[in-house]
Amino acid sequence: MGETRVKLNQISFDQIMNMEKQERVHFANSLGGFKSVGLIGTINKNNQTNLAIVDSILHIGSNPPLFGMMFRPGVVARHTLENILETGFYTINHINEKIYKQAHQTSARYDRDSSEFDETGLTPEFKNNFFAPYVKESNVKLALEFKEKVTLSINNTVLIIGEVKDVYFPENCLQKDGFLDIEKAESITCSGLDSYHKTKQISRLSYAKPDKIITTLI
Amino acid sequence: MGETRVKLNQISFDQIMNMEKQERVHFANSLGGFKSVGLIGTINKNNQTNLAIVDSILHIGSNPPLFGMMFRPGVVARHTLENILETGFYTINHINEKIYKQAHQTSARYDRDSSEFDETGLTPEFKNNFFAPYVKESNVKLALEFKEKVTLSINNTVLIIGEVKDVYFPENCLQKDGFLDIEKAESITCSGLDSYHKTKQISRLSYAKPDKIITTLI
Repeated sequence: MGETRVKLNQISFDQIMNMEKQERVHFANSLGGFKSVGLIGTINKNNQTNLAIVDSILHIGSNPPLFGMMFRPGVVARHTLENILETGFYTINHINEKIYKQAHQTSARYDRDSSEFDETGLTPEFKNNFFAPYVKESNVKLALEFKEKVTLSINNTVLIIGEVKDVYFPENCLQKDGFLDIEKAESITCSGLDSYHKTKQISRLSYAKPDKIITTLI
Repeated sequence: MGETRVKLNQISFDQIMNMEKQERVHFANSLGGFKSVGLIGTINKNNQTNLAIVDSILHIGSNPPLFGMMFRPGVVARHTLENILETGFYTINHINEKIYKQAHQTSARYDRDSSEFDETGLTPEFKNNFFAPYVKESNVKLALEFKEKVTLSINNTVLIIGEVKDVYFPENCLQKDGFLDIEKAESITCSGLDSYHKTKQISRLSYAKPDKIITTLI
């Protein structure tokens, strides 16, 4: 009835495997949708801080609150992984538009002796006696205690799981039903390896039940 | 220097654990950032189709292209999990603004005999001899072959890992370096349990190296 149909291209497994390496990495990283991205703050036992951008933050449970994140073998963020396993503590800090370039810069392959806080100008912040540093410029930040490391046999990536010990967020962003409005808190998302995006809420939807029409909550 | 500092509230682990259950679920689901959300299409050996919204899609590898997703014990999407384990095949279909209410409606607890395709009015589509159905109204869709199931001992959630066999996307969305512009393809993201968001690209950034200034690619 006059509706425009989007014309789709197709790419097969074989075509993906025949791509040049960087092209395949860009392509594969784009396929899963917009990603949960944050800055992971750690410190080792020699008081050396570290900060790494991670785009694989995964909600794993609510009772207790658990989050996971992936580390690929030999990845730039290996100092972060080492610090988490050595000390047991880390922070997750949401990224906003004011700091997204600095956040991206933390993915550069700095020496072990450099702190990405110093290199990028982001500010380490210690709060409430928590061992690991937060990012002062971040609006939503979580303290986590390491709980479990799972190595995926399929490609030796490592899933790190931690429990949320503390949460900080802007005072007007928590709604009565427990929903935290991270768009209002200016959190952003990413896609692929290097594309950053603000969001615009379409709406919240009512709890879905069979034979009941979905309604918008706001 | 005149900069407005955002005032932050704090919520501790104990306060989270003392929340009423639904409040805690809303809150915990909001904390990790914007999520990778899609519709998972499956069919069982009796030709019964199934469609479930999943907000935990995770990039696990590029060579070969691998994606994971989480299933909590006893979750509504258990029919999807059963079909994947029974048949070995499933699709991931990005959600756009035209179908987000129908996508959300798939989370209702329908009987085993009902297909969420029929219940929501989304259209099953079989392409290129792939065993599982795609969502016709989706613009970015992936075919996956099941590869590995990992049960996380911490809370018995299940991580399902699959390999990408085919990708469909709008013809003008693939950039020369392999980046797929999913914003241009109208893919959306979600936060919390029920909030849906369009995106607005800030920019793509150059590959980060020490002592090199980050530049915008577009």
